[in-house]
Amino acid sequence: MNLPDIDSNVLDAVAASRRPSAELPSLEPRPSPAATKGVLPAAALDQLFRLARTYNEWSARDVDDRTIHEVYELLKWGPTAANSNPARFVWVRSREGKEKLAALAMEANRAKIMAAPVTVIVGHDLAFAETMPKLFPARGEMLREFYREPAVAAETALRNSSLQGAYLILAARALGLDGGPMSGFDNAGVDREFFAGTRIQSNFICSLGYGEPGTPFPRNPRLSFEEAGRWA
Amino acid sequence: MNLPDIDSNVLDAVAASRRPSAELPSLEPRPSPAATKGVLPAAALDQLFRLARTYNEWSARDVDDRTIHEVYELLKWGPTAANSNPARFVWVRSREGKEKLAALAMEANRAKIMAAPVTVIVGHDLAFAETMPKLFPARGEMLREFYREPAVAAETALRNSSLQGAYLILAARALGLDGGPMSGFDNAGVDREFFAGTRIQSNFICSLGYGEPGTPFPRNPRLSFEEAGRWA
Repeated sequence: MNLPDIDSNVLDAVAASRRPSAELPSLEPRPSPAATKGVLPAAALDQLFRLARTYNEWSARDVDDRTIHEVYELLKWGPTAANSNPARFVWVRSREGKEKLAALAMEANRAKIMAAPVTVIVGHDLAFAETMPKLFPARGEMLREFYREPAVAAETALRNSSLQGAYLILAARALGLDGGPMSGFDNAGVDREFFAGTRIQSNFICSLGYGEPGTPFPRNPRLSFEEAGRWA
Repeated sequence: MNLPDIDSNVLDAVAASRRPSAELPSLEPRPSPAATKGVLPAAALDQLFRLARTYNEWSARDVDDRTIHEVYELLKWGPTAANSNPARFVWVRSREGKEKLAALAMEANRAKIMAAPVTVIVGHDLAFAETMPKLFPARGEMLREFYREPAVAAETALRNSSLQGAYLILAARALGLDGGPMSGFDNAGVDREFFAGTRIQSNFICSLGYGEPGTPFPRNPRLSFEEAGRWA
């Protein structure tokens, strides 16, 4: 598909050229000067990437409401196309919710869902176009029309809710949690059980908790820099 | 589509049940005990999420080869379905490369591509099934067959290369760089120009560099926890 998407950067620029920046809503402080940024400490790089693992087995430590809210309050800042934020989250933690989700998962994923403190269903709202006036006030009507086109909406939703799912995993790690992402489940069934009456579709699911140390198996290899890419 | 995907966790468990774990290849140290993990310092959370912005304008500071390699060496550890790692990267930094890419971008993105030290094309290889014996030795043949099915490959590739694109953005931020992701370009044209003779397709592009402080416009709002989700 070759439909050009619309970048928030472009639209920010367009919006800013139309009216003085002083009139644009300022919702929070500007970023700190770049001088304060640098390479994060080695322990942080280890925790986020180098030593992080996905988990199937969890320590007894629970994950409280506040921690889940904190995960969301971090992940929500990750960039999406035109600030569309199409991802929707169901934080499954009740016994009833886990049983409903587990029944729709691959056999091998059922025990994992029941054991995890929380398993979040990452979905995307195919009707996210309707949120554009709220999420991008300066160009909301134009963006609403643009994203009402079903093929554009579907591809944008899958791409950007996947980005947001990755922000979720890394936000959880940044708060000391571990994740266990899974895509082995009946998507249509989950959509019926958890998103009935909406246009939200499930993308993947991810358990959250404090992983049981020592349980992950040795890591599989990764592609080298040269195998995965090249300069141009 | 309702084809169950296959999770690396499942397959790790299956593989481990078949032979003693001592025989599994150990490529690197096990993760540190969970006791060493905790909430990252506030400055790190700011840099990764809370104060991070996307940029269109860049300081004069260049991005050297080593830094790009370091970005990859972090992002490669992010989890993907069955360790499939379908993303492929073209790190565009030559004048010729930038001109070729800019010519295929939306008008408003052209100057951004020319100005950025590096713009990476994040693509995914629809033939990633062929890498499974290398990336998941214990179940490589089975996974190769599974991912050869075109619809499974296409959805898995888009989902997981998007995850990897998000890992790229956050790995760059973790190293003090800034990103400027864009999806406003001619995907088919980029595939012809940069991925001819392969089954690699472009997903999105992302400039990398040191953002010019003060240039981002005020942020647009995000959805609240309750607007974006619910408990179950």
